[in-house]
Amino acid sequence: MSVTAAKGFTAAGIAAGIKENGNPDLALVVNTGPRLAAAGVFTSNRVKAAPVLWSEQVLKGGLVSAVVLNSGGANACTGPQGFQDTHATAEKAAEVLSLNAGEVAVASTGLIGVTLPMDKLLPGVEKAAAELSAHGGEKAAIAIKTTDSVHKTAVVTRDGWTVGGMAKGAGMLAPGLATMLVVLTTDADLDADILDKALRDATRVTFDRVDSDGCMSTNDTVLLLASGAAEVTPEYAEFAEAVREVCDDLGRQLIGDAEGASKDIKVEVVNAASEADAVEVGRSIARNNLLKCALHGEDPNWGRVLSAIGTTSAAFDPNRLNVAINGVWVCKNGSVGEDRDLVDMRYREVVITADLAAGDQTATIWTNDLTADYVHENSAYSS
Amino acid sequence: MSVTAAKGFTAAGIAAGIKENGNPDLALVVNTGPRLAAAGVFTSNRVKAAPVLWSEQVLKGGLVSAVVLNSGGANACTGPQGFQDTHATAEKAAEVLSLNAGEVAVASTGLIGVTLPMDKLLPGVEKAAAELSAHGGEKAAIAIKTTDSVHKTAVVTRDGWTVGGMAKGAGMLAPGLATMLVVLTTDADLDADILDKALRDATRVTFDRVDSDGCMSTNDTVLLLASGAAEVTPEYAEFAEAVREVCDDLGRQLIGDAEGASKDIKVEVVNAASEADAVEVGRSIARNNLLKCALHGEDPNWGRVLSAIGTTSAAFDPNRLNVAINGVWVCKNGSVGEDRDLVDMRYREVVITADLAAGDQTATIWTNDLTADYVHENSAYSS
Repeated sequence: MSVTAAKGFTAAGIAAGIKENGNPDLALVVNTGPRLAAAGVFTSNRVKAAPVLWSEQVLKGGLVSAVVLNSGGANACTGPQGFQDTHATAEKAAEVLSLNAGEVAVASTGLIGVTLPMDKLLPGVEKAAAELSAHGGEKAAIAIKTTDSVHKTAVVTRDGWTVGGMAKGAGMLAPGLATMLVVLTTDADLDADILDKALRDATRVTFDRVDSDGCMSTNDTVLLLASGAAEVTPEYAEFAEAVREVCDDLGRQLIGDAEGASKDIKVEVVNAASEADAVEVGRSIARNNLLKCALHGEDPNWGRVLSAIGTTSAAFDPNRLNVAINGVWVCKNGSVGEDRDLVDMRYREVVITADLAAGDQTATIWTNDLTADYVHENSAYSS
Repeated sequence: MSVTAAKGFTAAGIAAGIKENGNPDLALVVNTGPRLAAAGVFTSNRVKAAPVLWSEQVLKGGLVSAVVLNSGGANACTGPQGFQDTHATAEKAAEVLSLNAGEVAVASTGLIGVTLPMDKLLPGVEKAAAELSAHGGEKAAIAIKTTDSVHKTAVVTRDGWTVGGMAKGAGMLAPGLATMLVVLTTDADLDADILDKALRDATRVTFDRVDSDGCMSTNDTVLLLASGAAEVTPEYAEFAEAVREVCDDLGRQLIGDAEGASKDIKVEVVNAASEADAVEVGRSIARNNLLKCALHGEDPNWGRVLSAIGTTSAAFDPNRLNVAINGVWVCKNGSVGEDRDLVDMRYREVVITADLAAGDQTATIWTNDLTADYVHENSAYSS
């Protein structure tokens, strides 16, 4: 499972002491080859954490031998010291693994604005390297958790090759990637350009459409590493589909574990004039705090859906809008439709279908409800 | 006080039975002249309530004799029936006041997607007309309350003339106007064009920068009526300042009474390259749910401020950003600044200053914190 499901990878997850509670907080993933191809997608937030700035440079070469990931501190907004710390982390991994530091990606997650305890992190890298194993994927996935209640992994196996991965993220999930660290691995034999295309095609319709609370992180990182160990080169379409499937699975797990949420909400926008319109409308609905509160209260409040659609620039006629909640068309032609009492709101998953009656394009955005628990989790502690 | 502070206006507020709990729910404001000039600003939501569609037409003439306002139902997303109901309301007021229906503006607030009980509303108009008085401003302000805990009025008096007004709004406060109904009156002798300019200049920097929860209503309406009864024509600058002062006062009252809020948050953006940049950054900070939760928890979490700034397209260098919370510069040059423990978060008002170090333009946005009470108020009942 996880990042070691594909051949040609070892991983480890250990407690380095970065987290004060002693939980696992450092993961290492190593590509043992024969190929060392890689691609990465990073946060579009213009305030980027030091490890993002570092790893963006590393990925430009299309070659990654190892990834060091830590929870317990985001190393964001930490100035020149933060960048030096990331650099030192990569150098340490390179030293103990006999690699070039320019092939070591780094990813961090946790509190913004606090420097990392390097006296614990650097020995941690050494310790993790000593524990690398072809069965270490689960431990690595556990070590990157922050407020996640469970660790997240996914695997898809095709004819002789595999794509697997791990993810962490439980809040600050938003477009331009949710607040997530994701490492995907494959033993398929593919070059960096193909990996890059497959990763971008997949994240655009999966992680980029997970929008738990509208907040965009400074640290989002999604990496895809290929070892070539399966000695198989799949067709692009088949490979891209497998990557998308793994991303979709992990994205769904992120929404299912979002901080304080009691509902997973699938916003389907149909009959839009363009995909961009569908995404804009889906995001507007997904970010409407009043609607998210109503859904938490199991109130199929379609008026708040219309109100959210009305703030967009998408093509639609207000008098032709239709909205279904869990399959009941509670709004027809911009006005009262079927009886809202027919909507069954008891289950965790809620499906909102917004029909713009303006074309044939669609998009799906996933979000969560807004709850007192979310407020509590994000007001009671710094995070 | 309120809409009857200026000479040339009568008003009334009564219980018509639209609200099931028997509270006041219908207000009438009448301009007794000699002048009947008026201007209006309406929601920029493309899903507009029937009374907004009606009143936009009325205001095109620049002449308003009376305004009928009801709480207890928004008459939004009610289809052709909704528009007929608004029309009937204006006709009824015109009949009992011997006016032309085309001079009667209508405004509604309450639940979306439910038609109004016209069998109660129309007799209510008659009853309100019978109670019109030059001292009826307070009662009118009370009758337009929905979840407001207090009614809101403001008055500014200058040399021989007055601008007064009333407002309602407690949630769904957002740009393109907060969810609000506002009626302003003046006895200054000014024509509709001047009123329109003064009203737009004022709302742009007041109501339009009140952003409690990022949700934009289908019903927002701000009207300014001039009676000319003071027989004074002030200079434009002086008049515009008085209108802005009244709008600012009412806007501050709206934020202070926002549903479930425990903090009133002033987001000041300074040293922006343009006013548009300052507004974009201010709104992004004001809408960040994670930050709003942190401030509720009295946590001066500047990392979430930087994270919000980073999602904008404003001109700035991440390494030159400075952030103060209640006057303490907790972030300097994009990194850790003064000790966050110096920030005193005990009071209801919180001031966040974001220094973009990119120019000399500024803007201020007002918002609230995100609380469990907000979630409760908006999930426990339809609204």
